[in-house]
Amino acid sequence: MSTSSPPHPPHPPHPPHPLAPLLRQECIAARDAVVGLHGARQSLYFRAVHLDEPRKADLVPFLEAEHAAAALTGGHREPPARPPRQAIVEYDVVDAGSRPVHTRAVVDLGTGRVVARRSADEFSYPYFTVGEFGQCEAIVVNSQLFKDAMAGFALPDGFRITVDPWPYGGTADQNPRYMQGLVFARDASRNNPDTNHYAYPIPIIPIIDWVSQQVIRIDRLATGGSGDALEPETKTRQQQQQQPKPLFTRSRPAEPLNVVQPEGASFVAHADGLVEWQRWRFRLGFTPREGAVLHDVCFDHRPVAYRLSYSELTVPYADPRPPFHRKQAFDFGDGGVGRAANSLKLGCDCLGAIHYFDAWLAAPDGSPTRAKSVVCLHEQDAGLLWKHTNFRTARAVVARARELVVQFVCTLANYEYVLAFKLDLAGAITLETRATGIVSVVAIDDGKTSDYGNVVGPGILAQNHQHIFAARIDPAIDSYRPGDSRVVVEESRGAKMDPQKNPYGNLYNVCRTPVDRATWVDAEPRLNRMLRLENAHKKNDFSGKNVGYKLVAPATQMMLADEDSVLARRAPFARHDAWVTGFRDGEFWAAGEFTNQSCGEQRGVAAMVKRGDWFTEAGEEASNGASAEAQHRGQGDDAGRRSSPVVWTVYGLTHNPRVEDWPVMPAEVHQIHLRPADFFTRNPALDVPSKRNEASVLVPCCGATAASADSGDDKGASVQENPLSHRQGSGPGADAKDVGAHVTDEADKS
Amino acid sequence: MSTSSPPHPPHPPHPPHPLAPLLRQECIAARDAVVGLHGARQSLYFRAVHLDEPRKADLVPFLEAEHAAAALTGGHREPPARPPRQAIVEYDVVDAGSRPVHTRAVVDLGTGRVVARRSADEFSYPYFTVGEFGQCEAIVVNSQLFKDAMAGFALPDGFRITVDPWPYGGTADQNPRYMQGLVFARDASRNNPDTNHYAYPIPIIPIIDWVSQQVIRIDRLATGGSGDALEPETKTRQQQQQQPKPLFTRSRPAEPLNVVQPEGASFVAHADGLVEWQRWRFRLGFTPREGAVLHDVCFDHRPVAYRLSYSELTVPYADPRPPFHRKQAFDFGDGGVGRAANSLKLGCDCLGAIHYFDAWLAAPDGSPTRAKSVVCLHEQDAGLLWKHTNFRTARAVVARARELVVQFVCTLANYEYVLAFKLDLAGAITLETRATGIVSVVAIDDGKTSDYGNVVGPGILAQNHQHIFAARIDPAIDSYRPGDSRVVVEESRGAKMDPQKNPYGNLYNVCRTPVDRATWVDAEPRLNRMLRLENAHKKNDFSGKNVGYKLVAPATQMMLADEDSVLARRAPFARHDAWVTGFRDGEFWAAGEFTNQSCGEQRGVAAMVKRGDWFTEAGEEASNGASAEAQHRGQGDDAGRRSSPVVWTVYGLTHNPRVEDWPVMPAEVHQIHLRPADFFTRNPALDVPSKRNEASVLVPCCGATAASADSGDDKGASVQENPLSHRQGSGPGADAKDVGAHVTDEADKS
Repeated sequence: MSTSSPPHPPHPPHPPHPLAPLLRQECIAARDAVVGLHGARQSLYFRAVHLDEPRKADLVPFLEAEHAAAALTGGHREPPARPPRQAIVEYDVVDAGSRPVHTRAVVDLGTGRVVARRSADEFSYPYFTVGEFGQCEAIVVNSQLFKDAMAGFALPDGFRITVDPWPYGGTADQNPRYMQGLVFARDASRNNPDTNHYAYPIPIIPIIDWVSQQVIRIDRLATGGSGDALEPETKTRQQQQQQPKPLFTRSRPAEPLNVVQPEGASFVAHADGLVEWQRWRFRLGFTPREGAVLHDVCFDHRPVAYRLSYSELTVPYADPRPPFHRKQAFDFGDGGVGRAANSLKLGCDCLGAIHYFDAWLAAPDGSPTRAKSVVCLHEQDAGLLWKHTNFRTARAVVARARELVVQFVCTLANYEYVLAFKLDLAGAITLETRATGIVSVVAIDDGKTSDYGNVVGPGILAQNHQHIFAARIDPAIDSYRPGDSRVVVEESRGAKMDPQKNPYGNLYNVCRTPVDRATWVDAEPRLNRMLRLENAHKKNDFSGKNVGYKLVAPATQMMLADEDSVLARRAPFARHDAWVTGFRDGEFWAAGEFTNQSCGEQRGVAAMVKRGDWFTEAGEEASNGASAEAQHRGQGDDAGRRSSPVVWTVYGLTHNPRVEDWPVMPAEVHQIHLRPADFFTRNPALDVPSKRNEASVLVPCCGATAASADSGDDKGASVQENPLSHRQGSGPGADAKDVGAHVTDEADKS
Repeated sequence: MSTSSPPHPPHPPHPPHPLAPLLRQECIAARDAVVGLHGARQSLYFRAVHLDEPRKADLVPFLEAEHAAAALTGGHREPPARPPRQAIVEYDVVDAGSRPVHTRAVVDLGTGRVVARRSADEFSYPYFTVGEFGQCEAIVVNSQLFKDAMAGFALPDGFRITVDPWPYGGTADQNPRYMQGLVFARDASRNNPDTNHYAYPIPIIPIIDWVSQQVIRIDRLATGGSGDALEPETKTRQQQQQQPKPLFTRSRPAEPLNVVQPEGASFVAHADGLVEWQRWRFRLGFTPREGAVLHDVCFDHRPVAYRLSYSELTVPYADPRPPFHRKQAFDFGDGGVGRAANSLKLGCDCLGAIHYFDAWLAAPDGSPTRAKSVVCLHEQDAGLLWKHTNFRTARAVVARARELVVQFVCTLANYEYVLAFKLDLAGAITLETRATGIVSVVAIDDGKTSDYGNVVGPGILAQNHQHIFAARIDPAIDSYRPGDSRVVVEESRGAKMDPQKNPYGNLYNVCRTPVDRATWVDAEPRLNRMLRLENAHKKNDFSGKNVGYKLVAPATQMMLADEDSVLARRAPFARHDAWVTGFRDGEFWAAGEFTNQSCGEQRGVAAMVKRGDWFTEAGEEASNGASAEAQHRGQGDDAGRRSSPVVWTVYGLTHNPRVEDWPVMPAEVHQIHLRPADFFTRNPALDVPSKRNEASVLVPCCGATAASADSGDDKGASVQENPLSHRQGSGPGADAKDVGAHVTDEADKS
């Protein structure tokens, strides 16, 4: 490693791992390749520079050899060919006055050349960058149209206009690239730029044409309540006298609670994104659109997942009054949660011993900009992992659950999401989402209430809406090979009483249906329906069942918008709890690549299902005699073919705001679990030591004194006879050694 | 407080709070009253002595006055009448040779007299005590019938028989009081009494007549696999050579993780069970059947719940081969989770600063025995509670979630449950259940697999089963008065596109249906159906909606046994996700009071619904002119009447065992949430300080050195160019002050 970077190093001294995020000099090289291609004549606006992940077919031999070497099994292997190291550069070719041409180029970092390039369709609109979002307010407040509209409102003294940028939503007609602004007033007299402007919504929405960067229209918003018309009334002046309160006050803190790891963290975070913790090992990636991504997730060097990521999140609002039907964000496709990731701060977003990861994001000129501490890594305790007490001896064995948490937090104007991957000692992976931040609000006339939301403060209507998430699971259950992977739907079904098979009526059957073709699967808790991700060829030594992981996802409400609405057509993913599609390189997007201003899904999960990929079951190949090659139905991208299954799990939060969600919302937590199911030959956390935590302390009863040493005597007098007042450890035989006596297998150690 | 206790103190010097568990001397007084009643002629076997909770009508005026005084509102109040202090004593009147008569007496502790007494019906069988469970093994191994049966098996050298007691399950015919034993072999040569005997199941079940305390029959168990008959084959000898492995090994511990509260815990636990934490205040009770119970749960002195408890848990097994249909435990009704509660150990069951509560349980002679540390109380961190970053200033406000946890762990032979109530800063209450311990297994012939379960180890079949829990919520939403309480079913329903009402199809409607009569309610995630517990008369200042709490319970599979089966008829509660019944004092049991050997539910939730209690809506009284009194339909206990609603939430875990659940099962966690919904006028956790945790530390990248002070410079050279390797805090401007800068309302403080 050098202390100065050469201008275009074609190869770093040690080639990075194929899954390592781009190095800074790689970002520069990729950008320079694109600049060189276009020359000085053309003006370029850069949106993103990031790793072009290797094709799976190229990477799998590399990973297999890497793990074989690491696990010291399989002996010496020929080092496999290293996949080409490539970057994706996303940029607009800007020609003053005409619409910029959004372009995506692939740069081979070995040669420094652009090896592929394509432009977006005429009606595919790129996402907004943080920089574009930031321009919104200035464009709006300088617009004469907007100034004229604002003349209809009298703001309290000292208040100033604040505009939140929003994507324009979906429209049935093809529009130029638009942005809409949500308008609020902020109490600037407080000399605090963080005063909560959301408490003072102004009922207009300026529309910006992003080509001309001009406000082209002001939409007026209805502010009525239940029973009022959908259209806004033609008031000339609206005035709201109520002044917003300061957002945050302080009182009554709880006593400090610290998480301390006196001997340091148990994980190791490597420079190239490799993370090792207990028996887990994975590679952390980061993309501008997805934020943190987990690659090559292995337990004891057995692969579990090829790639785990959050894919999309759509937030449709349910207020039918136009133009509120355009409030439908796609937080990944319209903006990108990686770009919106917070720089995390020590001691604020997690507790304990924490490692932070930075990322390179692209500036408008394409140069890499460090995004500091956008992902954090730490361990946390998660309560009892397992316990058993032998009632004969009253001796217990008990182990505590420990989790490794990969977490990032993104801010999307008013709203926050906390997105995490958690790995645990028992071999399970949890995808955890927290929704917090400030609910999106609009103005409502004083004294009115609305069927379309909840009045959370004076003149403030928080509209009903949904958040519907999709996470993408590319499984690799004990094998990276596509032909080894399959998905089975498992249900538990009650059986009728039957003298032969079920004489007492207690039988239920566990029914398995392999998914043999791309499809969606709805949740059905009445049948305990779940997906099992399995290896089609490897069996568990004891159970004889295929080694697998099960996907445990609570059933949640899917999208409520009418299926013929533009909102629903933009997000077919949001209508089913799970999708199983055929793997294709680079297909990461549940609602398709281009969501901004889309009128309907393009190339999302619905399209993937429609093309009809199929998954041959083990043995079928032999039985029907057809080779995988011969089963290809077509050559185009949209033709079905034999493939390996990718699972998309969808979960939603129907958010009818509570008053308690204002002014900032307590997090709503959702969890999706991937749990080993006959993947191991026993509880993989069996060897977690049943060890007493020495740092825990007793809290006495408020009324007890330290001298109550005889209160534990069961037979006679006691200082305080109410058993609830008893302090553990104060009775006979209850000294520290006795309290700590635990693990019982003394005999087995000899 | 004295250091010696008088024999029968009629009143302690300071009368205990009406909800405080019985004092030791009160237990003694109650027992003595019963002994005195029966005199020396009769032999008594005591099962339980515990508080007879005051009638709600007697207690509410007391609580109202208590809180008015504590909140210093409402001025001076006349001290209300104190409800009578009473004990329940549960015992058998034993007459040698005939069936013991199970009896329940109520003792007035003021007078020292038995004021009520009743005997169980002929076919109501009392639960088993821990002592009775403990007698099982000796009765079995001394039985000649059993010895004869065991002669058919050859155990490995050094193995000894171990018998686990189980309730007999339900039967269609009326039997004497039975117990069944599950038989295992234990490797006694290891000189370790805690060796895992469950790994060696013997395929017989001895049946004990509990009146004669003799084994009356040996049931033989089928050990076949898929395709084999339901009946056991008539093998004369079975032999299993595979030796069980030691249950627990140790390796690879994670580094210690400590939870430290340097300034102590934030809660105060009082001698009489009162607990105060932040704005919460409640009274902890403990009963032999339910374990921990929360009474009078208040936030800022506004009541939320009158009583919160776990009520029942049934575990039906799905193996249709007789006699496995009799494997159906009712862990509350057949044994009692309070009686089965573990004595918790510091540093094992929780981390941090912990208070432990003891309880008095009754010995067979009725004397109080201290059960040490059966409930613990501690605080824990629960991740981000809320966060918002102002993207304009990049400044964040963030608060961490803190929970107060009331937890106990019970052991039911092989199995463990961790039952908790968690209160949080945002006004929510979570009921959290963890299922762990050792799955119930039976023998299977080597090499076979079974449709009825999973082979988790050599010769070991873990049968499919369900755990179905019921928790009882007696709400008191901002009022203790029965007439103020109501339950509303809320659903979010999509609307069809409509030019007038829903022109773009994005509308959905939030539909409310008050529950006006006792009923059950099934989960329907497609409609986001949930129950709201509301005050019928108080409105939220902002939203105008009734103040309330919503019950957020994930939809889980209900009981699968055929509805005509004895298993299903014993537990109608387990067939619906929620029940709403009319309040009656002392009605705590979802499957009825007597579950042991029941053939069908008696006086559980199904019977409560059938009697047809109704809940008058606010305003109805006036409109129909009938008084509450006049609406009584009958006088008997089983006649419907106007009442206040009690909510029973039911949730299940269909457990088709994984190999990973052996030999001890990683906890499966279920959570039910009660969240304020327009109960407060803002986020009640808004005043949680946005404060940096000073004890958190950075974990460096494995490759970084401490001297990498310039690596944060975005513009030029860096020590390590891969951003993932970057250490937070090492760049310019990233010193501790900068990292910790957080709360932003500086201007508001002046």
